[in-house]
Amino acid sequence: MLIVMKSDATPAQVDEVCRQIELLGLRPVPIPGGGRTAIGITGNDRAVDPGPFVGLEGVRDAIPVSAPYKLVSREWRPNDTVVTLPNGTRIGGGAVCVMGGPCSIESDAQIHAAAAFVAEAGATVLRGGAFKPRTSPYAFQGLGEEGLRMLREAGRAHDLATVSEAMDIAGAELVAEYVDIVQVGARNMHSFGLLRALGSIGKPILLKRGPASTIEEWLLAAEYILDAGNSEVILCERGIRGFDPATRNVLDLAAIPVAKSLTHLPVIADPSHGTGRRDAILPMSRAAVAAGADGLIIEAHPHPDQARSDGKQSLYPAQFHQAVLEVRQVARALGRDLAGEAVNAG
Amino acid sequence: MLIVMKSDATPAQVDEVCRQIELLGLRPVPIPGGGRTAIGITGNDRAVDPGPFVGLEGVRDAIPVSAPYKLVSREWRPNDTVVTLPNGTRIGGGAVCVMGGPCSIESDAQIHAAAAFVAEAGATVLRGGAFKPRTSPYAFQGLGEEGLRMLREAGRAHDLATVSEAMDIAGAELVAEYVDIVQVGARNMHSFGLLRALGSIGKPILLKRGPASTIEEWLLAAEYILDAGNSEVILCERGIRGFDPATRNVLDLAAIPVAKSLTHLPVIADPSHGTGRRDAILPMSRAAVAAGADGLIIEAHPHPDQARSDGKQSLYPAQFHQAVLEVRQVARALGRDLAGEAVNAG
Amino acid sequence: MLIVMKSDATPAQVDEVCRQIELLGLRPVPIPGGGRTAIGITGNDRAVDPGPFVGLEGVRDAIPVSAPYKLVSREWRPNDTVVTLPNGTRIGGGAVCVMGGPCSIESDAQIHAAAAFVAEAGATVLRGGAFKPRTSPYAFQGLGEEGLRMLREAGRAHDLATVSEAMDIAGAELVAEYVDIVQVGARNMHSFGLLRALGSIGKPILLKRGPASTIEEWLLAAEYILDAGNSEVILCERGIRGFDPATRNVLDLAAIPVAKSLTHLPVIADPSHGTGRRDAILPMSRAAVAAGADGLIIEAHPHPDQARSDGKQSLYPAQFHQAVLEVRQVARALGRDLAGEAVNAG
Amino acid sequence: MLIVMKSDATPAQVDEVCRQIELLGLRPVPIPGGGRTAIGITGNDRAVDPGPFVGLEGVRDAIPVSAPYKLVSREWRPNDTVVTLPNGTRIGGGAVCVMGGPCSIESDAQIHAAAAFVAEAGATVLRGGAFKPRTSPYAFQGLGEEGLRMLREAGRAHDLATVSEAMDIAGAELVAEYVDIVQVGARNMHSFGLLRALGSIGKPILLKRGPASTIEEWLLAAEYILDAGNSEVILCERGIRGFDPATRNVLDLAAIPVAKSLTHLPVIADPSHGTGRRDAILPMSRAAVAAGADGLIIEAHPHPDQARSDGKQSLYPAQFHQAVLEVRQVARALGRDLAGEAVNAG
Repeated sequence: MLIVMKSDATPAQVDEVCRQIELLGLRPVPIPGGGRTAIGITGNDRAVDPGPFVGLEGVRDAIPVSAPYKLVSREWRPNDTVVTLPNGTRIGGGAVCVMGGPCSIESDAQIHAAAAFVAEAGATVLRGGAFKPRTSPYAFQGLGEEGLRMLREAGRAHDLATVSEAMDIAGAELVAEYVDIVQVGARNMHSFGLLRALGSIGKPILLKRGPASTIEEWLLAAEYILDAGNSEVILCERGIRGFDPATRNVLDLAAIPVAKSLTHLPVIADPSHGTGRRDAILPMSRAAVAAGADGLIIEAHPHPDQARSDGKQSLYPAQFHQAVLEVRQVARALGRDLAGEAVNAG
Repeated sequence: MLIVMKSDATPAQVDEVCRQIELLGLRPVPIPGGGRTAIGITGNDRAVDPGPFVGLEGVRDAIPVSAPYKLVSREWRPNDTVVTLPNGTRIGGGAVCVMGGPCSIESDAQIHAAAAFVAEAGATVLRGGAFKPRTSPYAFQGLGEEGLRMLREAGRAHDLATVSEAMDIAGAELVAEYVDIVQVGARNMHSFGLLRALGSIGKPILLKRGPASTIEEWLLAAEYILDAGNSEVILCERGIRGFDPATRNVLDLAAIPVAKSLTHLPVIADPSHGTGRRDAILPMSRAAVAAGADGLIIEAHPHPDQARSDGKQSLYPAQFHQAVLEVRQVARALGRDLAGEAVNAG
Repeated sequence: MLIVMKSDATPAQVDEVCRQIELLGLRPVPIPGGGRTAIGITGNDRAVDPGPFVGLEGVRDAIPVSAPYKLVSREWRPNDTVVTLPNGTRIGGGAVCVMGGPCSIESDAQIHAAAAFVAEAGATVLRGGAFKPRTSPYAFQGLGEEGLRMLREAGRAHDLATVSEAMDIAGAELVAEYVDIVQVGARNMHSFGLLRALGSIGKPILLKRGPASTIEEWLLAAEYILDAGNSEVILCERGIRGFDPATRNVLDLAAIPVAKSLTHLPVIADPSHGTGRRDAILPMSRAAVAAGADGLIIEAHPHPDQARSDGKQSLYPAQFHQAVLEVRQVARALGRDLAGEAVNAG
Repeated sequence: MLIVMKSDATPAQVDEVCRQIELLGLRPVPIPGGGRTAIGITGNDRAVDPGPFVGLEGVRDAIPVSAPYKLVSREWRPNDTVVTLPNGTRIGGGAVCVMGGPCSIESDAQIHAAAAFVAEAGATVLRGGAFKPRTSPYAFQGLGEEGLRMLREAGRAHDLATVSEAMDIAGAELVAEYVDIVQVGARNMHSFGLLRALGSIGKPILLKRGPASTIEEWLLAAEYILDAGNSEVILCERGIRGFDPATRNVLDLAAIPVAKSLTHLPVIADPSHGTGRRDAILPMSRAAVAAGADGLIIEAHPHPDQARSDGKQSLYPAQFHQAVLEVRQVARALGRDLAGEAVNAG
C-alpha cells in the first residue's frame, strides 16, 4: 500500500497518517517527492485495507501494491489445480475439455439427441439449463428439477459429465444432487451468499466472469468459494459488455493468459455467450484454445431453429462436430490434446 | 418485430419465415428492398419473442419494435407512481426525497449520530447497510440483524423512514421486518429469484441499476417485481462501469429523463457510488435533481475518517447539510421542493 | 513514481532499478514489503516517465504519483482562466455561457434564422458546422468556407460570437479567419499535429473530450495547445462511448467537477451530442449547469425536421428558448448567471 | 430503413412520413402493429439516410436495414482482396503475414538489429515509428524523416517490406516516399481528411480500428479510402477501450471473423497494443491467427529494457522468434501458412 498525500498536505497530516499506520502494527516509510509526499507501508503480509486511510485529511489516494486475494493465487499454490469429473475428464493441467449442449433443456428427446451428438463429436461434458436467468419475466424460464433429471439421464446414457446453472442457494443444492458441475452465471458472479454456500456444496463450480467485472474481481469471487471450503473452481470467460451491437458481448480472450498467470485455477471460455453469433463460434473456439484456455463451453442444439432460447447462437450438430475437430487440431499443434484423448492415440 | 432476411435469402426461406409467423397467429408483411427483403409482423399486442426467428435459415436479424415490458411502462400507466412511506415522505410525483446515512451500520452510537444530522439537514429517509456485498471475502460484511435493529431505532428516534439492502431472499424477509424500503443492490439487479420474492414482501423496493445494464434491462428487472405483485418500486441510477479511473463509476444522469419518459416509476440517483469521490457528490446531487431525479441517496457518516467501508465517498455532517441546502435551491428554482416540505413553508 | 517489483525479484534486480533511478539524477527509496519490494523515486519536480523502468527485469509495475501535465493544472495556476470573446462574453470564472445553433450551416437564411432565435433566447455564441466529420463518406460534409462566411455574418447581425469546427491544420487556419472560437471535435482530440498548430492560431479553442478518453488524456491534449503557446482553451464534455443504445453517448457530468478540480481551464458541456435525444437535452442542460459547467453548447435549428444532419438531437426554437430560461433559473439558484447578464439585472 | 412511429402518432403524422418517403422517389409500406405503426421503405438500392425522418413529428426511431457502406462490402466484391508488397509478401487470401519491429525507430543500429532478428524469425514486414502520436507533449515524438530513411535501409538490407505510421496528410506523403505500407493509427481512424488523401497516396494502407469504434464505423473509415481511389486497405484490430486496468486495451478478436464476413479486405491483429503486456502477446498472437487473422503486427526490440517507448509491451528477440514459431504451428494446423512460405516447404 502506498498512501499518496495531496500536494498541499501539511506535515501534521503526514504525521497523522504515519501514526495510523503504526496503530495497525505496520511500519510507515515516508517518501518526500517534488510536488508531494507519499508514504509506503511495510510489515504487512497480506493486502492492507485502504479504507482507514482514504478518509484521512490530506490524503489524495491509497494505491494497493499487493493482490487482495490469496487462496486462488499462484503465489499461494504454484501448480495448476486439476478438477477431475466422475467420467474421468480432467479440467486444468494441459488438456482441453469441451463441454457442449443446448441453452435450455426442453425435453427428454431433445437432451438425449444433444448428448448423442456431443459425445460423438468427442466432447466429454454435457451442458443444459434447467433454471434460466432471463432478462424478461415473460421469457421461458426452464423446466426446473424435471430438466435436471433429464440432463442426468442423458449424460449417463452417453458417458458424459454434466453441468447446469444454479441461480440461488436452494437451486444450487438441487443442481448439485443431479449434475457434476454447478455453474454460477455471469449475472450471479457477485451473489456473495451463493458463493459462500458453494463452499460446502460438494461439487466443482463453474464460475462465469461478470460482464462488468475486472479479472481481479472475478478472482475475488472465486476466493469466496475457496475460502468457504471448495477448492474446485473452474473460471469461465464469457464476454464483457461492449458498445458494438455486432456482437452480444466482447469475448476478452486476453483475460485467459492474464488470469492463468495470476491463479492456479483452470480457465475456460464460452464463445457462445461471448459473441452471440453462430458464425463467430468456431473461430473463437479455436482462438480461445490457442490463447491457452483449459476448455470450452459451447451451445449446440439438435434443431437450433426450434430452440426455446438462444437459437441464434447455438451450433447445429454438424457445426459442433466441426468445432471439436478444429479445436483438436489447434490443441495438438500446441502439444496439447482434448480431455479424454491421448495425443498419441490421435 | 421486423425480420431482416440475408441478401442471398431464397424465396423459399422468406416463405418459411412467413409461415412461422402465421403459426403464431400473427400476420407477416413482406417488404421487398433493394438488396434484401424484410418482413414486418403485425397482429401482436405485446412484444414478439425473436427467439423462434433468429435461428431460421436465411434470417439475418430480428429487430424488436415494441418494448418488451408492460407493467412498468408509461403506456400502461401514464401517471407517476408515488410511493408513500410511514413518516409521510412521498417519493415520485414531483417532490425531491433525500435519503442519507452511512454505508455500513457500525454501532448504536454511530447510526444515532447519523440519524440526528440527517434529520436536521432536512432529509427524511435514513440509509444504512447491515448486509454488505463486498468484493473481497476479507472485507467487513456488516452487523446483520443487530444492525437492522439499530437502524430501526435510530430512524424512529428522528422520525426518519429507513432503507437497507438485502442480498438474498432470506435476507429480504429480515430486512422487510425492520425497515421501510428494501434495497436491491446493483450487483443483484439480475437476481431474478430475489426479484420475484420481492413481489410479496410487503414493502417498497429500491432497485439499483446494474453497472452493465441498459435502461431496458433495468426496467425489465422492475417488471419482475411488478409482475410478482409489488408495484412500489423506486429505481435508482448509481453509475455504470467506465474506463476512467478518475471516478468509481460513470453516473449516467441522462438515464433519469430517459427512464422517466418510459416508466411511471420514480427514479432517484446515488451520487456516492456513482462517483466514489467525496468532492463530486455535491455537484452531482445538484445535477441529478436538475435532471429530474425524484430523489437522492447519499452516503454520510459522523466520522468518515473512521468509517469501516466507503469512507472515501462519505460526506461529513456539514457537507451533507450543505448538499441538502443546495439541492433544495435547485429544486425550488424548478418549481419543486424537498419531500416533506411545502414550497411556501421554505 | 513507485516501482513495484515482482514477488520473486532478486536483490540484484532491485539494485539495478535503483542504479537506473540514480542515473536519471533522482533518488531511489526502497520499501521492503511482506511479499515484495517497492522502490519510491524522489528528487523529481515533474512526472517521471515510466518507460525506462517497466522493461527492466524483475519489475512488475510503475505507478505514477505526480500528474503528467503541468500548464493546465490548478497547481500551476490556481485561479480560473477566463476567455473573453469579442462581443464581451466571458467563459469561465462563474458565469454560464450558452452557445447555440445548428449542427451544419445550410444556407444564409437558415443560419440567420438560427442566429435570431439564439440571440433572442439570451445566448451569446452562435455555433454552426462548415466542415463536418461524418462517419460515412456519403453523408453531407458541410459547405466549407462559404458556410464560414455565412456564419460570421449571421453572428455579426445579432451580436453573437461564433464557433465552428476545424478538422485539420489547413481548415483551422481558415476557420480562425472567420470565427471567434475554433472547435476541435471529439474524434480529433488526439490529432496532435492539429493541437500543436492551434498553439499559434490566435483564437480560443473549444476542445471536445474524445469518446474513449480519460480526463487525464483530455487534459494532456489541452497541454499540447498550451505548451504550443495558446492558453485560451475551453474544455467540452460531450459524452463517452457507452453500451446502451438508448442514448448516443453517455454524458459524463461528473467529469465537470473532477476536471475543474484539476485544471484552471473553463469546462462546458454538450448535451446534444452527449445524449443524441431531443427529449434529454433540456434536463441535461440544467444538470450540467448544476454540476458546475461554465457553459453549454446546444444544437438548435429553425426547422429540425428539415435539418441535413443531427435533426434528431436539434431543439426547435421554442425549446431552445425554454432551455435558456431553465438554465438561467438553475444558475441563479446557485448564485451564478448567464454570461452577458448581471444577476441584479434579471 | 424502417421508420417506427410513436404509439400516439396520429394518422396525419403517418401520412406525412409516407409523403416524405415518396418525395425521395422511394416507396413506403406502412405496417400497422398492436401498439404502434411502422413504415418500411423500399425501392432504394443503397442505405437510406435516416436524417430526414428522425426529426419528423410522431417518429420514434429510424432503423437501418441495409449496410451504410458499399465498396468495402463482400456483397460488392465477394473475393478476398490480396495486397502484394514489393518483396512478394501477400496479405489476404489465406496466408498469415507477420510484421515485427520496434515501437519507435531510435537509431540505425537499433533498427538494423531489429530487422535482422525479425527476418531471421521468418517475418516479412518491418515496422517502426518515425512520427509517434503520444498522449503527453513531453514524451518522445519520434525521429521523423531521418527515422524513415533508417527504416527503409534496414528493410532493404534484410528483404523486408516496411510499414510506418502517418499522423497527417503532409506526413503521409513523406511516409509513402520511404515505406511500403502507410499506417493510420487508432487515434486517427476518424481523421477523414487524412483518409481521403490516402486515396491517391499510391501505397497500401494499414487502418487501425479506433478504440471506441464499432466494426461498422471502422468499415466506413475504410470506405473513405476506397471511395477516394485506393482499394489496398488492410484493417487492423488493436483493441478497444475497456474498464479493466489489467490490460491496456481489450483485444476484440471476434471482430476478425465478423469483419471478414462483411468485407473482402484483409484483417490483421496487433496483440502488442491490444494487450499492453509482454506476457500476453504470444498467446494472443496464436489466438488471432486461430480466429482467422490475415496477419499480425508485433512490437519487438533488440533491447526492450532500453526502449524509448512501449518497452513494457515489446518482445525480446528470442520471444519474437518463439511467437513466429508458434503462429506457424497454429496456421499449419488449420491448413494455412506464413506469407512467404509454402506449406510443403516447412
